[in-house]
Amino acid sequence: MPDDIETITDGTITTPRGFRAGAVAAGIKKKAKGVPDLAVLAADRSCPAAALFTTNKIKAAPVILSQQRLAGGRAQALVANSGCANACTGAEGMADAVETAALTAGVAGAPPEQVLVASTGVIGERLPMARLRAGMARITLSAEGGHELARAIMTTDTMPKEIAVKSRRGGFTIGGVAKGSGMIHPNMATMLSFLTTDAATDSAFLKAALQKAADLSFNMVSVDGDTSTNDTLLLMASGLAGNEPITADSPLAGAFQEALNRVCIYLARIIARDGEGATRLIEVNVHGAATLDDARKAARTVASSPLVKTAVHGHDPNWGRIMAAVGRSGAEVREDRIDLSLGGIPVVSYGRPLSFDRKAAAKALEEEEVVITVNLGLGSGAATAWGCDLSKDYVAINAEYTT
Amino acid sequence: MPDDIETITDGTITTPRGFRAGAVAAGIKKKAKGVPDLAVLAADRSCPAAALFTTNKIKAAPVILSQQRLAGGRAQALVANSGCANACTGAEGMADAVETAALTAGVAGAPPEQVLVASTGVIGERLPMARLRAGMARITLSAEGGHELARAIMTTDTMPKEIAVKSRRGGFTIGGVAKGSGMIHPNMATMLSFLTTDAATDSAFLKAALQKAADLSFNMVSVDGDTSTNDTLLLMASGLAGNEPITADSPLAGAFQEALNRVCIYLARIIARDGEGATRLIEVNVHGAATLDDARKAARTVASSPLVKTAVHGHDPNWGRIMAAVGRSGAEVREDRIDLSLGGIPVVSYGRPLSFDRKAAAKALEEEEVVITVNLGLGSGAATAWGCDLSKDYVAINAEYTT
Repeated sequence: MPDDIETITDGTITTPRGFRAGAVAAGIKKKAKGVPDLAVLAADRSCPAAALFTTNKIKAAPVILSQQRLAGGRAQALVANSGCANACTGAEGMADAVETAALTAGVAGAPPEQVLVASTGVIGERLPMARLRAGMARITLSAEGGHELARAIMTTDTMPKEIAVKSRRGGFTIGGVAKGSGMIHPNMATMLSFLTTDAATDSAFLKAALQKAADLSFNMVSVDGDTSTNDTLLLMASGLAGNEPITADSPLAGAFQEALNRVCIYLARIIARDGEGATRLIEVNVHGAATLDDARKAARTVASSPLVKTAVHGHDPNWGRIMAAVGRSGAEVREDRIDLSLGGIPVVSYGRPLSFDRKAAAKALEEEEVVITVNLGLGSGAATAWGCDLSKDYVAINAEYTT
Repeated sequence: MPDDIETITDGTITTPRGFRAGAVAAGIKKKAKGVPDLAVLAADRSCPAAALFTTNKIKAAPVILSQQRLAGGRAQALVANSGCANACTGAEGMADAVETAALTAGVAGAPPEQVLVASTGVIGERLPMARLRAGMARITLSAEGGHELARAIMTTDTMPKEIAVKSRRGGFTIGGVAKGSGMIHPNMATMLSFLTTDAATDSAFLKAALQKAADLSFNMVSVDGDTSTNDTLLLMASGLAGNEPITADSPLAGAFQEALNRVCIYLARIIARDGEGATRLIEVNVHGAATLDDARKAARTVASSPLVKTAVHGHDPNWGRIMAAVGRSGAEVREDRIDLSLGGIPVVSYGRPLSFDRKAAAKALEEEEVVITVNLGLGSGAATAWGCDLSKDYVAINAEYTT
């Protein structure tokens, strides 16, 4: 069976029909003048929409505002900025978010209450509203503007993260952008990710599909175990693809879920790969777990272990650290049932070390993508998690961020 | 009221009456020839004893053996080695642990089943038994040997960790040694710590007192979030102090607990300070939590956050990361109730940033001990946790460990 899902060259968030975007360098990023830091995404009309937000109990003003505005399941536009998280800024921060949305309404031609807000950057500082107002006046929207938006939400990211795919069977397109880098951990790990589709559907279906896709992708990524105050994952559907509206029972529900998973997993992997200071992607495949939940726990614990991450960084096939991480993950574990392999090289069988070619294993850890496979030998639970190596650059990047 | 507890100059695990120890360089540490790596602690006779072990489901052979042997609440000797964890070594590893204990019985003049075993080092490698046997034959025990033992259990530790205190009121002494450095995280964080006392008491009281002390000390320490397969905290009581045997209801129970807490907190702090690559100690004091459990969660989450640790390393008063850590800790939190201070400088009040002298705050983060104080403003729960900064040296140390 040929793959139903086609990746669109140069695809982004404005690839699906009915969306425009644009960005400017408003000067919110104090240390990076001329770098885009303010962006708007606009749909031609009000869309069914769904979102997932940070589980952190300290929520930034834009998160609180967007949660309120999405209660009705619809949105028409989004404004996003980097350089300032607008978190821990109290009533003034909320007023700034509301004003930002109101200014965006003018640019997007949307009702203010249909505008969502997302911010990322330093916590505890107010948005520079004068610069933001001046910047907003210069934003123009276009059907190619997704690329600009993808750049404008970057912080310590080294590359924009964007994709679009088409479902041949469904005739619809899904696009997505994301920013990651630090404060990335399972439970709405994305920091920011915005997705669009031209599929016709409703917000209830979008919400369920988004949760499923996030559980397979963004919620299986860890960079450093820290959860942000601003994490937002948003999906808007313009309905312009002309398909029969998709609900949970529709023939196209599976095709939509599959395409959405593809987009989210692509973005999640690239977030892990581009984690602060990372030099390579770590993919952890756990199978044979007693339950799905156990598989998820074990995969995420291995992918986020500092000792596993540093060992991969140093090309050190120190599999004992993987065993130790599996053992503390909370998953049901029997030491004498565990098989491990590193980059395809079996290193542990039934809990016991195999004699293996350490040079070949070290070599496997030098690859751009390092695959760790764990068979717990207990059941049929399987899950995949992604992380990155831990380098001195992670420390360098984070030791001097605000000062 | 004068302090009942006196710190004994040069005190160690053989300071309490009735204990001898000794160590040799047996060659278990392959890369550090001539460095002590095998040590024995012996009591003059069988002692009431209690221990806490790793919660990791992958347990090293010496942990499993010591757990079995301590079921009766008594022990007379301990053998400890560094350089090899004897973990993931199956039936052969268990046989090695049993033989090591048998050899120790000869050195210590103790029944083999009264000998406990503790190992630390690389996971997945067998103990070099020929070298261990030869080394064991050279061990001599003395009442000053605690210092040798403290050195012999070091791995990446930069200094031995030892202390002894005397309770003036109780007339008894408690000594302790520990090794820490990496794979250090709450829930039996110590890797290895051995405590002795000459107080007369029983194993039930020792067990309860040890759990209380660990909850205030070793279980509030984090270096990197990884839990070892070998963590062991052991307490043996020779009974030679001549006191009325202490039970939970004894007049001296409080004095014993206080002295034990003092020893454990001292060792826990120094483990944090000497965490791999650490340049300073971070102490996190949380008060005003809704519950004690909330206070413990919040304190440990802040102390173990990579972003807080890197900020301290860079002398960066980036308090937003502390807010974010508190918010994801699982503790009940209301943003507008939180007060924060860094090194005594208030930076947040009722959840809002204060304007503070950033240079003074940066200066406070350069101190040998950095104190972070969080008032959650909700109740009377209070707890203290310890951690260390995250430096490039942590990465360097851990990127090349086995190879």
